[in-house]
Amino acid sequence: MAKISVFGAGTWGLAIAILLDQNGHDVTVWSAREADLAPLLAHREHAKLPGVPIRESITLTGDLEQAATAGTDLMVLAVASIYTRSIARRLKPYVRQDQVVVNVSKGIEEGTLCTLAEQIREELPQADVAVLSGPSHAEEVSRNMPTACVVGALSKKTAEYVQNLFMSPVFRVYTSPDILGIELGGSLKNVIALAAGMADGLGYGDNTKAALITRGMAEIARLGIAMGARAETLYGLSGIGDLIVTCASVHSRNRRAGVLIGQGATMQEAMDQVQMVVEGVYSAKAGRALAEKYQITMPIIEQVNQVLFEDKPAAQAVGQLMTRDRTQEHFSLPWD
Amino acid sequence: MAKISVFGAGTWGLAIAILLDQNGHDVTVWSAREADLAPLLAHREHAKLPGVPIRESITLTGDLEQAATAGTDLMVLAVASIYTRSIARRLKPYVRQDQVVVNVSKGIEEGTLCTLAEQIREELPQADVAVLSGPSHAEEVSRNMPTACVVGALSKKTAEYVQNLFMSPVFRVYTSPDILGIELGGSLKNVIALAAGMADGLGYGDNTKAALITRGMAEIARLGIAMGARAETLYGLSGIGDLIVTCASVHSRNRRAGVLIGQGATMQEAMDQVQMVVEGVYSAKAGRALAEKYQITMPIIEQVNQVLFEDKPAAQAVGQLMTRDRTQEHFSLPWD
Repeated sequence: MAKISVFGAGTWGLAIAILLDQNGHDVTVWSAREADLAPLLAHREHAKLPGVPIRESITLTGDLEQAATAGTDLMVLAVASIYTRSIARRLKPYVRQDQVVVNVSKGIEEGTLCTLAEQIREELPQADVAVLSGPSHAEEVSRNMPTACVVGALSKKTAEYVQNLFMSPVFRVYTSPDILGIELGGSLKNVIALAAGMADGLGYGDNTKAALITRGMAEIARLGIAMGARAETLYGLSGIGDLIVTCASVHSRNRRAGVLIGQGATMQEAMDQVQMVVEGVYSAKAGRALAEKYQITMPIIEQVNQVLFEDKPAAQAVGQLMTRDRTQEHFSLPWD
Repeated sequence: MAKISVFGAGTWGLAIAILLDQNGHDVTVWSAREADLAPLLAHREHAKLPGVPIRESITLTGDLEQAATAGTDLMVLAVASIYTRSIARRLKPYVRQDQVVVNVSKGIEEGTLCTLAEQIREELPQADVAVLSGPSHAEEVSRNMPTACVVGALSKKTAEYVQNLFMSPVFRVYTSPDILGIELGGSLKNVIALAAGMADGLGYGDNTKAALITRGMAEIARLGIAMGARAETLYGLSGIGDLIVTCASVHSRNRRAGVLIGQGATMQEAMDQVQMVVEGVYSAKAGRALAEKYQITMPIIEQVNQVLFEDKPAAQAVGQLMTRDRTQEHFSLPWD
């Protein structure tokens, strides 16, 4: 039995806490907001995970020090990506040398183009930072639907340590040394989910969506390789696996915003209607900046940017993608 | 304007004929069965492509010699995979040296484990055999929904020749030297579509399906690499792209059969209810035989075989997949 604290009491943080509690660990969940904590304590249930009990064996607290000192074996960071750096900074006094910290959120910082693990390492240089990602709707994990994820860490030992804590008969965990690949796939897939949503909004079929997903992942893989990540990871659970689950989901905010834009809404109208942060909009900007920095051609991410920020009609963007110069599928493959 | 004949008047053969006719080519379509040909000639429409006209500029015939001599620039083989070898044999007298023949069907011969292009090359050693594949429901291609495919050929020249004939503002074609990879992905993806259907039938969610798709493609890629194909191709349009479109489709026979089996039907009951050939059942056998021949661990294909042919309950198969030994996501990735 390990002592684990989870920072962030959103649906994903709670689904992880429930899984780790089922695995027999001693789990504490920290919430930043009193307004979020009170109903959790009162009902032992999250409004967006109805019917899923948060057992009394899980400690819920708003006290950062209490949570930080409870998680001696593992700290899980599950806050929205814009808060990752500031929460990591606040945890600094409580994090000992080689403390394992697993980040389970996704995103790229706009100004610095840092991934979340890079931000955490900057703020907590003493920590052994790992990441966990994959196709994992919280709604399904909390209801014990079979799910597979991947944990990335600098050392095999740390990756296997985290794997052992999370793995259960309904939650399968693979290990990987490619932290960067895991983070890039998880962040940039949201741009492709936006594009897939636009195709749906335009009334196109499954062919168009599958083409956008496949070619979108191909351009993310090109970028990832240039940045030092591995293609296998982009084509793994945390990359295309997560993209598939996002594009299939009727609940995905990114997909929904894309549908609205495909139907003719502006980015702002779509954001207003979805009424939540649409990660893909930020990731689109970050993707374009990374493409420029590493001199990679990313036609889908470029067109999504033009639709979002330059008022290009979505149909025209798809048309331009279809009529680009004739080319090979993968330039890495030689002709005899 | 090229002279092209399409052999096979099913929905996919006709969708391709309609596309090539729109591209300005002189197109002849051959049908093996008088019973299929008569309504096409009478209504200039296929019953399963309602509202899509087969223009008078497309010649429809039941005369093999007429069709074969009409396709001087390109022959397209679009017959069901079990007929590919015999039709190729019948075409032998009409195929000149270096005649380009594009196969657009998918399958692996049970006894020989030959792909379709391998069978065609055996029967037509004088031909320059290419393949075209990708996420392309005929229903959508025939209605001009944006679609992207890949053409594989032994020479770049032939691949680009076919690319130029097919490419249009709504049908984008990429080239590739990896014929084998294109064929393996297209054939074996049906086994994974069966598995994904079973997960749906069992009531599991999108997480489970995305995990099966991703890990299924990972094992197909391992096999493909051992056989001389390239991982990029398996993760391209003809591999994971086609798998995504199959798993998303409510029309896929493979997925539908899987759903029924997941709900408790036997393989025979599922086949009877779907009332059509379920390619994935044959591909499952072929996949298992290839895994044995090349000594590749393919846990998902193995479990699908046990469910189909050894009466293993689908839930037990998923359980065994989830609780396999803890492992890395990709053994090709090194730890520092």
